[in-house]
Amino acid sequence: MPSYTLTYFNIKGRGEPIRWLLSYLKKDFEDKRIAPQDWPKHKDSILFGKVPVLDVDGKRLYQSDAICRYLAKEGNLAGDNSLESQEIDAIVGSFNDLLGAVSPLWKITDPKEKEELKDKLKSTVIPSYFKIYDDVAKSGYLANGKLSWADFFIIAGQGTLEFVIGADLISGYPNLVALRTKITNLPGVKEWIEKHP
Amino acid sequence: MPSYTLTYFNIKGRGEPIRWLLSYLKKDFEDKRIAPQDWPKHKDSILFGKVPVLDVDGKRLYQSDAICRYLAKEGNLAGDNSLESQEIDAIVGSFNDLLGAVSPLWKITDPKEKEELKDKLKSTVIPSYFKIYDDVAKSGYLANGKLSWADFFIIAGQGTLEFVIGADLISGYPNLVALRTKITNLPGVKEWIEKHP
Repeated sequence: MPSYTLTYFNIKGRGEPIRWLLSYLKKDFEDKRIAPQDWPKHKDSILFGKVPVLDVDGKRLYQSDAICRYLAKEGNLAGDNSLESQEIDAIVGSFNDLLGAVSPLWKITDPKEKEELKDKLKSTVIPSYFKIYDDVAKSGYLANGKLSWADFFIIAGQGTLEFVIGADLISGYPNLVALRTKITNLPGVKEWIEKHP
Repeated sequence: MPSYTLTYFNIKGRGEPIRWLLSYLKKDFEDKRIAPQDWPKHKDSILFGKVPVLDVDGKRLYQSDAICRYLAKEGNLAGDNSLESQEIDAIVGSFNDLLGAVSPLWKITDPKEKEELKDKLKSTVIPSYFKIYDDVAKSGYLANGKLSWADFFIIAGQGTLEFVIGADLISGYPNLVALRTKITNLPGVKEWIEKHP
């Protein structure tokens, strides 16, 4: 059994889909969380200065979506052929675009400007993505009509978005709500969430 | 032989690594380029309103890196096992982070502010990535010491970065310069570039 150490901050964010996948795959892992005041001393020792990173038997893996895709292959969650894998990657990529549209929030210091961007995200940008995800999730899942790591990535990420925006974002999308219920009740994921609310 | 239609703008940008891969793989493809004035009428008919998209025998594929990964598998350019694939995906992901740091350039309207960001990208941000890529490329390539779609993605993307920043960015990185020479001289890629300078 390989050893796994996840290094990230003490937040859900880009670490949470990895934690869900590791838990679902029944992997024991060390969940190393860096306190904000310790980050400067870690940053320089991590390639590209970014977390999460996952150490697997001493090999360091970078980039949250690339880590998820790697883990997903072990659980048959990465598609059964290259077209299925492409569909999974594309929907995950769209969610990364959405996160990119949200990311200026971290840089804006003016409170009024920050509220304006939040409002725009909440009223226009996020709904334009969630509407599509809800349509796709009519099939029960976000890619190929079956469980994949895209469901872990986007449902975990949607929780982070709600936290960042400070509002419920998904109750108007019944298929996404149903998918969230399904994913958060998967064996392993359910127990993880109960222990880390 | 499946039919391929790439839809993008009349620029290199996120379309170019796909064009290079298709050319290297000896795929005939229609290189459909949307004029800026025609974009509004196309935007609404494309899921997520983003290009490039690649139509393969009538199935539409989204997201430039997901499209590249899909094509790469056909040419054994996506790694021989899941750890190799992860290394490729991670280095591509890092380049997407860099593109994310460059992207505010499109939104800034104030010329002074734009120049300031360009200067910061040129003097600090881009070198911090290129230094790492140059170290990795000592092995001859950007992942696993052998040719992969990461080389196509990052070398094509580096050309776009130079265009956007309006400066030479790589001459100080000898291994990256050597890699650029190697990739742009690959059969298929070389002929494509000669026809589309």
